[in-house]
Amino acid sequence: MQRLRRLLRQRSVRRSDGAFVVEGTKVLEAALDAGAAIEAVYFAPEAHRQVAAARLLARLEAAGVRCFALRAGVIERVADTTSPQSLCGVVSTLERPLEALAAAAEVLFVCVDVRDPGNLGAIIRSAAAAGVGGVICCEGSADPYNPKVVRASAGALFSVPIALGIDAAEAFSALHAGGFTVLGTLARGGEDYASAALSPKLALVLGNEASGLPVELAGGLDGSVSIPMASATESLNVAMAATVLGFEIARRRRQDAATKPGAPSI
Amino acid sequence: MQRLRRLLRQRSVRRSDGAFVVEGTKVLEAALDAGAAIEAVYFAPEAHRQVAAARLLARLEAAGVRCFALRAGVIERVADTTSPQSLCGVVSTLERPLEALAAAAEVLFVCVDVRDPGNLGAIIRSAAAAGVGGVICCEGSADPYNPKVVRASAGALFSVPIALGIDAAEAFSALHAGGFTVLGTLARGGEDYASAALSPKLALVLGNEASGLPVELAGGLDGSVSIPMASATESLNVAMAATVLGFEIARRRRQDAATKPGAPSI
Repeated sequence: MQRLRRLLRQRSVRRSDGAFVVEGTKVLEAALDAGAAIEAVYFAPEAHRQVAAARLLARLEAAGVRCFALRAGVIERVADTTSPQSLCGVVSTLERPLEALAAAAEVLFVCVDVRDPGNLGAIIRSAAAAGVGGVICCEGSADPYNPKVVRASAGALFSVPIALGIDAAEAFSALHAGGFTVLGTLARGGEDYASAALSPKLALVLGNEASGLPVELAGGLDGSVSIPMASATESLNVAMAATVLGFEIARRRRQDAATKPGAPSI
Repeated sequence: MQRLRRLLRQRSVRRSDGAFVVEGTKVLEAALDAGAAIEAVYFAPEAHRQVAAARLLARLEAAGVRCFALRAGVIERVADTTSPQSLCGVVSTLERPLEALAAAAEVLFVCVDVRDPGNLGAIIRSAAAAGVGGVICCEGSADPYNPKVVRASAGALFSVPIALGIDAAEAFSALHAGGFTVLGTLARGGEDYASAALSPKLALVLGNEASGLPVELAGGLDGSVSIPMASATESLNVAMAATVLGFEIARRRRQDAATKPGAPSI
């Protein structure tokens, strides 16, 4: 229990152990479905009385995952939320080298100083939904294994390849070497995303919630895009901006596939 | 203080008083800029030592708003958040009749059972950013004056016209009478939004986070749209779906304005 609590609360422990905690039936089921390495699962007495949780426990045991019964009240003392789920699991971290993402993906999100775990989780969820091939979390961004990120990603953490802990300038160099165009996303002043090229291979750089992208990184960008707002005082948060951009790229892919018969549908 | 606390916590008090609480410098500034009726403002001793808060207090006093100094620690006991801002204001509620929104707007969002205040706030924020002309909160949806909605809307609550407390089926009838096409948004099974007409006057109906739109309302819809996902297991939350749809409409408007010289730019 002490280990669970530390994995939930301390990024350094998650990094040194190469593991993190997944809370709740839905997200743990996504981990199992995605073939993630589930080290162990812990469940409260009520889990066996809940249809979805009981079914998941049966699947986990059939898959050879060690499942441990906890006494009443224990999971409540460990959990990250005030209304904890009836089960949680310890799962091996999932990150891959940036080079592997760059080789496999047509489109990537690059997070630079995205600090809010809810935003990072929503960005990962949108990436999975829009078919963005990976999310690179540069140094300074929230930890994708933070329990708030895991929750906000709604299981998408297990379907989108993640790279992390990379210096932003080094990431841009590696992406250029991999044939990517690297575009910054700015609150205002960039090219209208709707008329911008956005052709793969494309890396979209998402910046800090308050301050945007640091000016030192400007030299590493091939250009920048903005989402025009209805008026100067309005704004979108970084996760919503990522959602708009990710789905614009997906929309163009479907359009291209429809107008070029024989072209591969992605 | 008792009144502030009740306005923050009880929807019925907000409704009977026709007032709600706005917390924090940024959102209160948005209220002042938008010309909202600010009844009174309460501030903690530290507000005068914070540049933005002190400047806002000066503006409020110049505008004739009554500003009351609170003793240290009082605002912390009243506030809705664990890390409260140094000032808050009581503002008159802003809703307008559905018919007024329908007459003025080209595009509307209609929320049916959108229960999560964070989602409703994000929908209002996206509406403002994308130029959607109003948000109709049908019975069963979160209260737009809930402090969590006010925060999540990031001040957009004061720039987007709101109608509320309307039965969904009655809202659809009134929208049809006002010349609107009423389209449901479905997690799957609707027409691809990217190839759907989406022509004004258009009302996009957003459903419950878990269960979507109730089947009883299907007869009141002129059609439905979905956002295609990269795979069957992925999903977007309702606020992100609204963002994608709102900005697709804005994108087409800009495109139409660019290709039809002389057409009004909206």
